[in-house]
Amino acid sequence: MKILKLTSESKTDLLNTLLKRSPNNYGQFESAVSDIVSNVRERGDEAIFEYTKRFDKCEIDASNVRVTKEEIEEAYQKVDEKLVNVMKRAADNIRIFHEKQLHNSWIDMKDDGTMLGQKITPIGLSGVYVPGGKAAYPSSVLMNVLPAKVASVKRIIMTTPPDADGKVYAGTLVAADIAGVDEIYKIGGAQAIAAMAFGTECVPKVDKITGPGNIYVALAKKACFGYVSIDSIAGPSEILVIADETANPLYVASDLLSQAEHDEMASAILITTSEALAKEVSVQADRLAEELSRTEIIKKSLDNYGYILLADTMEDAIDAANEIASEHLEILTANPYEIMTKINNAGAIFLGEYSSEPLGDYFAGPNHILPTNGTAKFFSPLNVDDFMKKTSIISYSKEALSKVHEDIELFAQSEGLTAHANSIKVRFEQ
Amino acid sequence: MKILKLTSESKTDLLNTLLKRSPNNYGQFESAVSDIVSNVRERGDEAIFEYTKRFDKCEIDASNVRVTKEEIEEAYQKVDEKLVNVMKRAADNIRIFHEKQLHNSWIDMKDDGTMLGQKITPIGLSGVYVPGGKAAYPSSVLMNVLPAKVASVKRIIMTTPPDADGKVYAGTLVAADIAGVDEIYKIGGAQAIAAMAFGTECVPKVDKITGPGNIYVALAKKACFGYVSIDSIAGPSEILVIADETANPLYVASDLLSQAEHDEMASAILITTSEALAKEVSVQADRLAEELSRTEIIKKSLDNYGYILLADTMEDAIDAANEIASEHLEILTANPYEIMTKINNAGAIFLGEYSSEPLGDYFAGPNHILPTNGTAKFFSPLNVDDFMKKTSIISYSKEALSKVHEDIELFAQSEGLTAHANSIKVRFEQ
Repeated sequence: MKILKLTSESKTDLLNTLLKRSPNNYGQFESAVSDIVSNVRERGDEAIFEYTKRFDKCEIDASNVRVTKEEIEEAYQKVDEKLVNVMKRAADNIRIFHEKQLHNSWIDMKDDGTMLGQKITPIGLSGVYVPGGKAAYPSSVLMNVLPAKVASVKRIIMTTPPDADGKVYAGTLVAADIAGVDEIYKIGGAQAIAAMAFGTECVPKVDKITGPGNIYVALAKKACFGYVSIDSIAGPSEILVIADETANPLYVASDLLSQAEHDEMASAILITTSEALAKEVSVQADRLAEELSRTEIIKKSLDNYGYILLADTMEDAIDAANEIASEHLEILTANPYEIMTKINNAGAIFLGEYSSEPLGDYFAGPNHILPTNGTAKFFSPLNVDDFMKKTSIISYSKEALSKVHEDIELFAQSEGLTAHANSIKVRFEQ
Repeated sequence: MKILKLTSESKTDLLNTLLKRSPNNYGQFESAVSDIVSNVRERGDEAIFEYTKRFDKCEIDASNVRVTKEEIEEAYQKVDEKLVNVMKRAADNIRIFHEKQLHNSWIDMKDDGTMLGQKITPIGLSGVYVPGGKAAYPSSVLMNVLPAKVASVKRIIMTTPPDADGKVYAGTLVAADIAGVDEIYKIGGAQAIAAMAFGTECVPKVDKITGPGNIYVALAKKACFGYVSIDSIAGPSEILVIADETANPLYVASDLLSQAEHDEMASAILITTSEALAKEVSVQADRLAEELSRTEIIKKSLDNYGYILLADTMEDAIDAANEIASEHLEILTANPYEIMTKINNAGAIFLGEYSSEPLGDYFAGPNHILPTNGTAKFFSPLNVDDFMKKTSIISYSKEALSKVHEDIELFAQSEGLTAHANSIKVRFEQ
């Protein structure tokens, strides 16, 4: 891995390089996606089945688009029982962590009869997209579905592309069953997103679409935003490690590679104040890259988006981390908690030497669907609030309104909205 | 106003009619907006100043694009002191209501050294768009800025178009000053949204853009979503009143008209179980439409999107209200609180005969920036959470990780992610 000095130039270069990976920059696919979306919106099932034949080489129709109970039972036969049990334990942890995020509706009351509050209710129907083929990750199914389940969303559907034989990856089906998905449809790509956004004869219109996907899926989600709610638009995976001389270089190198293996656009960055650590991590990372199974992906990812940055001070390292706003941030220093208090922008923070990033991907409970590409500056990990919405509650008594009715009338008049003023005034004229 | 029977047909017709007003349906403006956005992204200030000359007939440059302290002082001279005080009282109420929405960061701890939680922090920089001309509403300035202020957002900027003389509406400046805006830029339209999304020489890049605007502004916000966070895409205003025979027809008619006056696309709907009330409201609404100042707008809005629906039962009325998911919902019945418990989808609920909708627009404290066009099924009123983001915290001890490391390794292996598995494994090999 390359070692650079952390300067304002190297930081700017790095930020510009990372931002190039944003799914927002793939405008050239927009018109293809827009065609698919309008076609599904207008022609419904017919369009979906055509695209499935074209893109997935699979003939489906209304009679077999839904995964059956028998197919789910078959899937359980194909998955190692030990793994099924691990999935169940992971699901328990995810459920417990997300239950702690639940908020009650609340109401504030005053003596004069004023009641103001927020009613907090789940959305009615959520839709999860799960990629097929090599990108079918059962862990992602758990992470997408369980927050909706904890939010008490009444109906949760899933779409995922079938293979040429019309089958769905067994691990996806088992994870969906463990998480409590109600219906699974064998549809993939932009056509699946459009189906869920607008509804078709077979697929119900949902309120929110979540889940990862390729560039077509990401752009279809953006195109449908507003008709439905979506989670953030996911870019390639990222890890940033802040470490000092106390960190174990083998752990740091291993953790960097755990994200580099995701894909060639993934980014792995170490920022350290220790030159000795920088050199040792570089050596270990290069060695591990050769030993692990996804060597080609790891090497390309490290070449393009892997950095070891040597910082003069820990303050500089922290400032850079806040600017990069990484999806995953590990803090491997003598005082990780103190540094955490200074981190404002990150998807998830992993503290200390026994909190390696895959712990969060699979098991600890916090969601692994995290803001990427600097969007941790304004987006959050997928969470229960994403599946709930608020309604304001406003209730005034005659006494309460009579004290302020002239203020409201004056304000409305000043904006030229006389019918607004009138609606208050009529209550005090009779 | 027309009176119809509430049936599944009339409901479907109404829903389809209302949805036609969605800003999502104005694809024909998309390429114009996309040109403006890319031009500002590439050419920065130069592009902004050109568009301001073209669209606002106003020559601005780097020396005068920012509103000065003197201009704000002048604005105070132009606004009635009584109105300034009303704005301040409204601001206090808005601040108090939004302070009740603040959530603490939290952490959950276990004996074995596990610590899991959420760090909740404000975004760094928020940008508010304020329309110019007739659509400059000081109340909207307060509603957009104060939640960000309560969230402790460090820097809040505003953009608003200048008139041909390079001036900004005085009421906007006073409201911005009361709410605590840090900088105001004289830029409007899609070019202002692009400037805030990407930053230019003069305008800083923000993390989140909120605020209403015309179709160009709405589409520019959607185009920039992902580069920045945005609030929901606002459509025309809506009111739905559920009333029974106990409701005062003058109040109902006045409240319907208070939204109808917003613009010709605004929608005003009464659903009632009382035929007598339906008839009386229809008469009163038509009479008031003639008397109030914005007669032409009100008549067109009522003709196109005004409905009085006669329901067989209160249950039917409630079901329809949940399907329509109105921006504003008034409940004027003998038992408004009981009905409220059955309402899942609405931006804001106004209860009882002294909670007319303009109370919420101007004064009570809850936000008046609300989801429109059925999006209350999944979007929320603007609130403090919109200006905060979450970061997951994950900290395991050696003891805690050693109990589960084999589970994680197995799960990672099953997904073919060997570098993930390795990053856990190396911690238990030495």
